[in-house]
Amino acid sequence: MIDQTSARSPRRIQPTSLFTDHYELTMLQASLKSGAAHRRSVFEVFTRRLSSGRRYGVVAGTGRLLEGLADFRFGPEDLDFLAQHHVVDEATLEYLADYRFTGDIYGYAEGETFFPHSPILQVESTFAEACILETYLLSVLNYDSAVASAASRMTSVAQGRPCVEMGARRINEEAAVAAARAAVIAGFASTSNLEAGIRYGVPTVGTAAHSFTLLHDSEREAFQAQVDALGADTTLLVDTYDVEQGVRTAVEVAGPRLRNVRLDSGDLVEQAHWVRQMLDELGNTETGIMVTSDLDEYAIAHLQSAPVNSYGVGTRLVTGSGAPTASMVYKLVSRQGDDGQWVDVAKAAAGKGSTGGRKVAARRLDDRRRAVAELVGVNEQPPVDSNDRPLLQPLVLDGVVQEGWTGPEAVTRAAQRHRASLAELPQAVRKLQPGEAAIPTLFNGR
Amino acid sequence: MIDQTSARSPRRIQPTSLFTDHYELTMLQASLKSGAAHRRSVFEVFTRRLSSGRRYGVVAGTGRLLEGLADFRFGPEDLDFLAQHHVVDEATLEYLADYRFTGDIYGYAEGETFFPHSPILQVESTFAEACILETYLLSVLNYDSAVASAASRMTSVAQGRPCVEMGARRINEEAAVAAARAAVIAGFASTSNLEAGIRYGVPTVGTAAHSFTLLHDSEREAFQAQVDALGADTTLLVDTYDVEQGVRTAVEVAGPRLRNVRLDSGDLVEQAHWVRQMLDELGNTETGIMVTSDLDEYAIAHLQSAPVNSYGVGTRLVTGSGAPTASMVYKLVSRQGDDGQWVDVAKAAAGKGSTGGRKVAARRLDDRRRAVAELVGVNEQPPVDSNDRPLLQPLVLDGVVQEGWTGPEAVTRAAQRHRASLAELPQAVRKLQPGEAAIPTLFNGR
Repeated sequence: MIDQTSARSPRRIQPTSLFTDHYELTMLQASLKSGAAHRRSVFEVFTRRLSSGRRYGVVAGTGRLLEGLADFRFGPEDLDFLAQHHVVDEATLEYLADYRFTGDIYGYAEGETFFPHSPILQVESTFAEACILETYLLSVLNYDSAVASAASRMTSVAQGRPCVEMGARRINEEAAVAAARAAVIAGFASTSNLEAGIRYGVPTVGTAAHSFTLLHDSEREAFQAQVDALGADTTLLVDTYDVEQGVRTAVEVAGPRLRNVRLDSGDLVEQAHWVRQMLDELGNTETGIMVTSDLDEYAIAHLQSAPVNSYGVGTRLVTGSGAPTASMVYKLVSRQGDDGQWVDVAKAAAGKGSTGGRKVAARRLDDRRRAVAELVGVNEQPPVDSNDRPLLQPLVLDGVVQEGWTGPEAVTRAAQRHRASLAELPQAVRKLQPGEAAIPTLFNGR
Repeated sequence: MIDQTSARSPRRIQPTSLFTDHYELTMLQASLKSGAAHRRSVFEVFTRRLSSGRRYGVVAGTGRLLEGLADFRFGPEDLDFLAQHHVVDEATLEYLADYRFTGDIYGYAEGETFFPHSPILQVESTFAEACILETYLLSVLNYDSAVASAASRMTSVAQGRPCVEMGARRINEEAAVAAARAAVIAGFASTSNLEAGIRYGVPTVGTAAHSFTLLHDSEREAFQAQVDALGADTTLLVDTYDVEQGVRTAVEVAGPRLRNVRLDSGDLVEQAHWVRQMLDELGNTETGIMVTSDLDEYAIAHLQSAPVNSYGVGTRLVTGSGAPTASMVYKLVSRQGDDGQWVDVAKAAAGKGSTGGRKVAARRLDDRRRAVAELVGVNEQPPVDSNDRPLLQPLVLDGVVQEGWTGPEAVTRAAQRHRASLAELPQAVRKLQPGEAAIPTLFNGR
């Protein structure tokens, strides 16, 4: 599915080190001064709840953040800016000039499903090294996981009918590339986004816009131009004027080998039925029907009864179908004292409390390999038996990104992993209505 | 407000030409083959409705898209990718190798308010040149305008209390930079995002996280470390353990010149009242109260009665407060035929119709310079009188980006323009509840 030969991975983007909140650097300065900056620390990424009553979330962005970690360096231009604006003092600038992450990162594999309090990422290093990664790590995980979590519901409902990601125009241009990647991890077949193609090897596809038909003197001339250029193995957009006439003209121009007609407005269920009948009567039994137009998981569920062959999904996908962020947070859960002893820590405040201590996580599977619980041990292995599947993978060890987690290869692996992880979950996760997490999260077996 | 001397503008980012949907290039190929690619064409960006019952929208992203237009070129790497993946044929690759935009772009000034069917951007060029900009232009405008539209409601409700953008961690890392820029255009005072600082000269500020307090052996030691490093002119986060004790310790450590305490959990209205009283009793009458914690325009409205000095806004800002995209579309509205005559065009389909013809727009102002209508003329000047304000500005002429629309300077100007544009609108726009657009859009005076 993913083209691993010709994609450039990672395509060079700019340094990532200033995708950082001001306070991370001032905290660095203050902790360098107090000496606490060098205390070993464990930060964890987790979410307190799933968005919008969803049954599960999908981890995405891991590969991207590991690719960006190599560029998380402070160059002369960055340091000049920080100095000129008095963001931090001289000692801190010196620290940043030499900065590179030398610690360990464990985390859920990309594509894995997650639940409330799943320890999705765990960063162990000095406070100084780990503290300044907060914003960057969360930006990547929060958006990519929001899209993947929405995408998984869509592909799940589509039950094998291909879904095509087409949302680039509705979200920030760089977010759009990340969205295409996340969508493919969660089961989308392809994307319209060319940058996602070049950067991650994701297959790209296209149809045609109304403007193309309107540019020509008639719909027939437009279809003829498209077929002349691209062959009959193309998708003709038939709703610029009159759908019935559009279908007739499309078949006349492209013949029986026309790949698809696309419907983009009106009552798609009703149209799909009579367009299918019409295509069959005209002899185009192999021509598919692609539908687009503000689709989401609910619209797809409604369209499953209609003779539709593929779905193009845009706005609702790239905006997380009502949940444009996954609400993940990055919290210090344990740190050493001056005596080298680890101290578990957590904020006490109302409604935002968390559990101190380093987590260990496993998915509990029953004898039929169905997931029944998310086991989270605090400073200890959760009570696992032979079926249980450990969830925290070594992603970075001593600052070195481990093999297999980056590049186009990681996208392929993440998509496979997502299918496997989803297959373990109870069938109830396919329900679209709001509800509880598919499986409970148990701390130390409780 | 905006630092124009030290910001690098635009900071180098990668080429923008593949932030493009596959179909734009295949339409290019087909129209090059049919010859229609060279027809002069007018595309317009507009929105059919405002998001979520809002009273107005705010244009943002214009400066960014003009900065990116210079990088909208197809380099060898891009062309290799398109060739290897058979996206387009040889003739199209040759066209793309020489591509640069040579046409005209008119548009609403950045920061301007808009309404349904306002012609926010108008691109005139050959079909070929204009067609392939679709996704890039829409990505930039849709996200940036979504954030600015939400931000304007927040700053409007805050009535002069400074709002600080802090949402980077909840949205894609590049989107976050755009969001910070858009927020400042719509009245935010500053951002936590350092990349927005270096790229656009936006002022950056920071406080401290709970992790900083938890890293130290006591809250007092943490506050002391922060004050030692940053002075008393800092913001201490007082809700890690017990707010009352936190405030007391903050004042003891920092003294009367402590700038702010920050509250990030619990009932913020109630806390703000007693924390204010406590600060005053302790002699810290000049110390401000900053609140954060899932704020949006509704939460800010609720907090206006409390003695709060500034708001830190995150998630809800960068996700458009429920409307993460501005739903703008890019439609061909007119094009020449082979005889050189202009033909107005529009899709006929149900629910997605638009008005063909090139638009001219003005804001109708009454004698007190209050906006009363959005006047849109189709292929003609709308009936304007002396008070009316023309809205379409020349942004690009013959491919040349006009002065003043890019860089940090453009952010300053856009923020000024936004204040002026908002001041013209009826007071009713400050209402938060859903309703009609603040002023009607009249086509050719009707």
